[in-house]
Formats: sequence, structure tokens, C-alpha cells
Amino acid sequence: MKLGDLGEDRLLEQLLARPLSGKAIVMGSGDDCAVVEAQDCGELLVLKTDCVVEGVHFLRGTNAFDVGWKAMMRPLSDFAATSAVPQFALITLMAPKQTEVTWVKKLYLGLRRAAERFEISIVGGETSSTPGSIAISTSVVGFVERERWVSRRGGKAGDDLFVTGRLGGALKQKHLCFIPRIAESRWLTKNFSIHAMMDLSDGLGTDLPRLARASNVAFKIHVEKLPLARGVKINNAISEGEDYELLFAISQRQRKGLQKEWKRKFPKLPLTQIGSLVPQSAIRTLQLRRGYVHFQQPS
Amino acid sequence: MKLGDLGEDRLLEQLLARPLSGKAIVMGSGDDCAVVEAQDCGELLVLKTDCVVEGVHFLRGTNAFDVGWKAMMRPLSDFAATSAVPQFALITLMAPKQTEVTWVKKLYLGLRRAAERFEISIVGGETSSTPGSIAISTSVVGFVERERWVSRRGGKAGDDLFVTGRLGGALKQKHLCFIPRIAESRWLTKNFSIHAMMDLSDGLGTDLPRLARASNVAFKIHVEKLPLARGVKINNAISEGEDYELLFAISQRQRKGLQKEWKRKFPKLPLTQIGSLVPQSAIRTLQLRRGYVHFQQPS
Repeated sequence: MKLGDLGEDRLLEQLLARPLSGKAIVMGSGDDCAVVEAQDCGELLVLKTDCVVEGVHFLRGTNAFDVGWKAMMRPLSDFAATSAVPQFALITLMAPKQTEVTWVKKLYLGLRRAAERFEISIVGGETSSTPGSIAISTSVVGFVERERWVSRRGGKAGDDLFVTGRLGGALKQKHLCFIPRIAESRWLTKNFSIHAMMDLSDGLGTDLPRLARASNVAFKIHVEKLPLARGVKINNAISEGEDYELLFAISQRQRKGLQKEWKRKFPKLPLTQIGSLVPQSAIRTLQLRRGYVHFQQPS
Repeated sequence: MKLGDLGEDRLLEQLLARPLSGKAIVMGSGDDCAVVEAQDCGELLVLKTDCVVEGVHFLRGTNAFDVGWKAMMRPLSDFAATSAVPQFALITLMAPKQTEVTWVKKLYLGLRRAAERFEISIVGGETSSTPGSIAISTSVVGFVERERWVSRRGGKAGDDLFVTGRLGGALKQKHLCFIPRIAESRWLTKNFSIHAMMDLSDGLGTDLPRLARASNVAFKIHVEKLPLARGVKINNAISEGEDYELLFAISQRQRKGLQKEWKRKFPKLPLTQIGSLVPQSAIRTLQLRRGYVHFQQPS
């Protein structure tokens, strides 16, 4: 069987299926970040790696600054999902020998500017030549308070589902210059009890079922309520991906307080209740509207 | 200018030349690992990233298990250099869609076995397709006690220079199955005051000048004393690289005690005093033997 015949989720599941060895792993692979107990540390250690590859995540002609920005911001969006504070980054650059040094310098400027935006130190790097295409791998390390870290797993039937910002249309521009919702996430976990959270990188239609599956619940969405980016159709908003917005589950009782305080704190950023989590037993009775084939209820 | 016209050292120097931002960085880029102060942690946080690329670090026909082993052990050798304890690893795999799943599984088995050898947990991973060659990026996070971490910088004129094991010939076999000298390094810093240390990845002729430069001293080598691997000539031992042995500087006064206790603790592993560090002012008067062109005294 070829790698292309397996989805990434299934591949990682298979490869990492065996129980991880004796360290104190609070949350390993399968969530946005790895969260671990580190000896001698008061807070939980949070780790995330990601990569952007020429021909997959960006095209040859793309501005190198934008590529660097994206390479740093993608793993930071996972920190937002975990409500963790990123602190240190390591960069591995694989590039052909004939790559222009000016291109690489612009790339690092993008990486640096993105890191500075969140006061992250780029503490190490490695470069290698490659006979293939340019690839940048970014690993980020940070911390989260025990009482504030969030995973995809804590959603409860009855919870409201919220998304930040607007969905869809990201591939046109935003995916190269987005700002991860770390400030918003940290504010949420400081002021509210967030049951489950993730960032929307593959599209609501792919990501929401992941959150539901991890929480052992199903979901109900008011598709007509989805906050669409300008000129975007509902189907595109569900399936396109690269929104890098937050999706989270919170007790219904907190809805009014959250909506009121959010408006005061982030007046320019929409916060939309798009539906709710429901018991898995409710799936069969749900009237799923046709057309939204990309939503797969957890099986 | 093309990337191929610059050495990696110079590239990283240029890119990371600007002062790093406000975090407590004990040692950033330019040494084997990054060593940082982490809030709320008693020990220092140690970070290292590295990669192996098909066509550069391994050939297409190489056993996937060996590739995985090497991809994990290379950054661990830098932990040995720092005398740090590795704890967590993140893996990024970039591979074409037509890669065989069995190949990838063997790769992960190699990564896992190598990680288990040092009780490291692989806590996260990311996969991406690529139109280019296979590449594996490994990031490792761990800790070191404040009083035990070692860099390349602390060498003093008059120090003895030691290397572990035998040099040269690694490219024939050993580079795919070596065991980083973490146990030896931890024993050294527990029992002796090691002034400066690094792992030999690019060959003594390239790496020793780096240690000397970082320590602001010069060096004197007894080439006839170099511990050669079987069938290897001196020039090859100096220039080939991938030895993954330790090179360290220690006060002359500790020589006898070190040699005696080493023999008892590691009876099968040679420890050789290959020369000493000397003041930079001594360079002009040194009688450098011809032929060892790969040794560049710090300028």
C-alpha cells in the first residue's frame, strides 16, 4: 500500500498506536499539541512540530516572507487550540543548493517577524541541502498552566459550539498572513471554562467531526448561521480549510456572559454560536441537510 | 548568491546574527543544542532539531529502520555534547504519496527503537506529502542541571583534549547504527569538571577548530596519537566525519584520575588524549605538520 492511499490521520494513528513509553504524557499525538509533565516544572510542557513544503503548502513564486510567516504561524495556531503560551522555536530548512540566499533571508525575516509577534525566541536552526523541493519544519515549545490547558476531548453533550472569525476564502490570501488566535484563546481560558477546543486548519467539515469523536459525542450545526467570509458559499466555508480560527465547546449556561464580554474585549472579531454537541445516540434522529457531504458524523 | 556558495555555519551565523529577543537564552544557535531558562523549571531546558534527507544523508536503497535510527540518534548526539538528558521527541515526515507504507512503518520502528534506547517519548508527529525526496526532521527536548551543562565555549589554554572511541571509517557502516555517547557524557559531568565539549559529526578537522574558536584558544594535536578505526588512515580520520564521538577539554590536573576511572567504568571504549588547547598567541610558533589541510586554526 502507498502512503497516498492512507489519510494522514490514519497513518499517524497506525504509527503511534502503541502505548507511549514511561514518561508523564498528559496528551500525546492525536491532539493539536503534545502536552507533557516535565520534571521540576510547575507548568505543563507543550510541544508542536509542523512543516510547509514547496508544491504542497506554497508555490514556487510565493513571497518568501509569507512562507516564513506561515511556517511559524501554523504550529502557533495549535498552541492557540491548546491555550498554551509558545516560547521557543527551532527551524529546520531543507533547500536545494541553487536556492538564492536572498530568498532564504526573506524566509527567515518572515519567520522572525511571526515569532516576534508572540515574543517567541528562535533558539536553534539546522539547514540541509536537498535534491528535492524546499521544506521548512518548525518546532515550537511552550507552557500551559495545569488548570488552563484545553484539548479536543472534553466536549459534553449539550455544550454550545462557537467559532471565532469568518470561515472560507482563506486560500485566496489569508492563509499566508493569518494571526493565530492565541490572545483570544488565553482570554477564553482565563475567564471561562472551555470544555474542548481546536483550531480549524482542514475546514469545519473535517475538524468538527474530529473534536466530536475525541469527545465521544455527536454535533448539530445550524448551517445557515455559519459566519461566512465575504463572497464565500456555505459549502466552501465547510470544506476549504486553512481558516485558523478557533472552534470550541462551552457550557450553554456560559453563553450569554461569553457573548457579552467577548463583544467588549474583541469588538472587531465575530464570535458565532454555530450549533451544539449532542449525545451520540441522537445521530440517527438528526435531520442532516443534504449537500454538506463533507461533514462526517463520528461513527 | 546561491545557498550552495555559503557554508552552513556562515548561513546560520548570518540568519541568526541579530540579537535574540527577550527570553532567557543561556546558549542559542551556534552550539550543539539550544539551552534556555524556562520559567517555573528548576533545570535548564535543552532543545535540538535535526534532519535527514534522502540523497544527502541516506540513499534510496537504505534500510528504513536504519534511516529512522539515524534520524533520532543524530540530535541525541548533540544532547551528549551538552551533557543533557533527552526526554521528548517530535517527528516530521515529508514523503511522496507513492512511498510504501511498509517502508514508513520500518522507519518509525527505527525511530522508536532509538528513542526507547534512551527512554525518550515520541510525543508528536506530523506528516506531509512532498513532490521531492523523503525527509525526516526530528526535534528533541530535554533538560540539564545548571551545574552540569557543557558548551563549546569553556575551553582554557592548557586544557587536555580527549576523544572517545575511534575516528574514521564511519561512513562505511557505523553512521547508520551508532549510539550517542549520552551515558559517557553524563558520567563525565557527574564526576569531573568538563570545560568544553562537542560531538564529532563533521570530522575532527572541522569540529575541533569550532570548539577552539568558541573558546577563544588555539590547539595542538599529536596526530600520531589519534585513535584510528581499523584500516583508516590519519587523513581520513580527520576529514571524514560522522564519528559521533565526544571531543572534550578538561584541566590537565584531572588527566590521571580521569584515565583511571574511565578504564574502570567503560573498559571497552577507548579514551584518548589527542592534544591540548593553547593560547591563540601560540599559533604562529606551532609546527603544523603538512598534509592535514582540513585542520584550520581559528583566525
